[in-house]
Amino acid sequence: MEEHINEHISDWMKEKTDTPIIMSSRIRLARNLQDEVHPLKYDDDQIGNRVIEKVTNALSDLKLVRLSDLSDLEKNQLVFKHLISPALTKQDTGAVLLNEEESTSVMINEEDHVRIQVMGNNLVLKELYDVASKVDDELDKHLTISYDEKHGFLTTCPTNIGTGLRASVMLHLPGLSIMKRMKRIGQAINRFGYTIRGIYGEGTGALGHVYQISNQLTLGKTEQEIIEDLTQIVEQIISEEEQIRSRLNRFNHMETKDRVHRAAGILKSAQLISVEEASLRLSEMKLGIDLGYIEHDDFNFDHLMVTIQTPFFEDEESKQSVDEKRATFLREHI
Amino acid sequence: MEEHINEHISDWMKEKTDTPIIMSSRIRLARNLQDEVHPLKYDDDQIGNRVIEKVTNALSDLKLVRLSDLSDLEKNQLVFKHLISPALTKQDTGAVLLNEEESTSVMINEEDHVRIQVMGNNLVLKELYDVASKVDDELDKHLTISYDEKHGFLTTCPTNIGTGLRASVMLHLPGLSIMKRMKRIGQAINRFGYTIRGIYGEGTGALGHVYQISNQLTLGKTEQEIIEDLTQIVEQIISEEEQIRSRLNRFNHMETKDRVHRAAGILKSAQLISVEEASLRLSEMKLGIDLGYIEHDDFNFDHLMVTIQTPFFEDEESKQSVDEKRATFLREHI
Repeated sequence: MEEHINEHISDWMKEKTDTPIIMSSRIRLARNLQDEVHPLKYDDDQIGNRVIEKVTNALSDLKLVRLSDLSDLEKNQLVFKHLISPALTKQDTGAVLLNEEESTSVMINEEDHVRIQVMGNNLVLKELYDVASKVDDELDKHLTISYDEKHGFLTTCPTNIGTGLRASVMLHLPGLSIMKRMKRIGQAINRFGYTIRGIYGEGTGALGHVYQISNQLTLGKTEQEIIEDLTQIVEQIISEEEQIRSRLNRFNHMETKDRVHRAAGILKSAQLISVEEASLRLSEMKLGIDLGYIEHDDFNFDHLMVTIQTPFFEDEESKQSVDEKRATFLREHI
Repeated sequence: MEEHINEHISDWMKEKTDTPIIMSSRIRLARNLQDEVHPLKYDDDQIGNRVIEKVTNALSDLKLVRLSDLSDLEKNQLVFKHLISPALTKQDTGAVLLNEEESTSVMINEEDHVRIQVMGNNLVLKELYDVASKVDDELDKHLTISYDEKHGFLTTCPTNIGTGLRASVMLHLPGLSIMKRMKRIGQAINRFGYTIRGIYGEGTGALGHVYQISNQLTLGKTEQEIIEDLTQIVEQIISEEEQIRSRLNRFNHMETKDRVHRAAGILKSAQLISVEEASLRLSEMKLGIDLGYIEHDDFNFDHLMVTIQTPFFEDEESKQSVDEKRATFLREHI
């Protein structure tokens, strides 16, 4: 397990996707135990440890990682692989249950007692939901889950009450971003109760043109409806991105070719590079590879995007600045 | 001779310079024949052709090139090698006398009947003046030159009256340019009767951070004084450029290294590039080579600067834009 934590990407991420536009899909279910106070109200570690024990016993197929056993570096790796939230690292009794390929993770003692999360490479929300449901069924078999006939699953934050479901898809949308279509798309899908936001780098916009599209509402729709609607919306956005790429390819051929080759040239030659610029250049280079302008056998966009943000750059003993280490890393790995 | 004209650089340019900061020095003498009207007043080709004949007979060691025998492309090559001025190409009876290595050129029927020009690689204005003087002596031996005891040599434009001498040095000053010192330097040397201006690309600023420093006054000082003063001024500017480079190297080491490597990366990867950006990147790359950040055995800055501006890009039959041809040329030659 320890070697897994220290890897920058999870096993499930290594499989090929149907289209390079889809980076991953995710299903999250929020659940709470009826006979324990909510994590935000814990006044000592005893309750948290008891919850860990109960959940771990119920989900014995998964392996337990207590965050108190990890270094800051290892915790951050889990955050960057989206296996845990930054909030969990601040919880004294934070823990996570993981399967071998890190496609399933169950956070314990985050905002809710239990958050089941299942991730996959393609637009397969239905399949991921089925996996999450099985974990949910196991929980239900051994423990009493907070549930109300009228409101559905009860959660710490009212925005999750009902299904407790958050379905999300991560998309790489350089075409729509370059052509400044993202705002309009965001407004359009908001009206249907869905939301779009940058996934990397809190509050700094969409680093690397990577966006997460997810449901805002957990109440008033069934899980199936949420997943079907989101799947349709994502298919529509993918189709728009494909159209815009084909237009870039046809009518702005030389400008696009210039842009993506310059991006690769900068990544191969810069001696200092910020996370914002590195993300932009990696996104442009990926677009170039996807459009066939650049040949590159071994370009793992997710891995690079995750690595350029990890704080491991700060941990080595050296006088180099983070921007210098990032540039060195990129020159060596592009 | 024809093959010479079609080369992008002259033989004398191929020698090594004492410091990479000096690109070339030049001496120009303006002279007129007493018994002919000035070129701007020619009313048919007869006078011009007679002047060509007289001057050619006087300077029989040099080879005559009549501009009417050249294609537009060949004329432009001579302009870009600074062997003739753009004005000469518009003169019906324009001609130039050249020595084998193209270090001496004598323009006939430009603004003045005769303009003797001698160019060299280093700060050797005195030596170049001696060569120009010998050509001048030959002229004087065979022809009657317009000369006034009080005013000195008489020229078409009053700014050249007196010595008829223009001494100039071309310098590559990326450090002073990047640190925005050029304006102050320009103001300082103006006070002494000298002037500084960009040498490439008329009116578009100093392309490639290459500047020409020359005397404004041709009257009231002897040739020796003009040359000695200019030599001192140029030595001072070179010393300032060297100081600023050593400071960039010491205190902005990583930023400078980043800048010059990125420049090389862009030149090697761009698919479209303007003459302005190409000049800037070439200048930065040359700085990187001069500072030892970049190794490159075969980087001929003058040649590249001249070539990216030559209109030969427009002459080939192809659908490529000039910016695309320029980028292709640079990727192939860097």
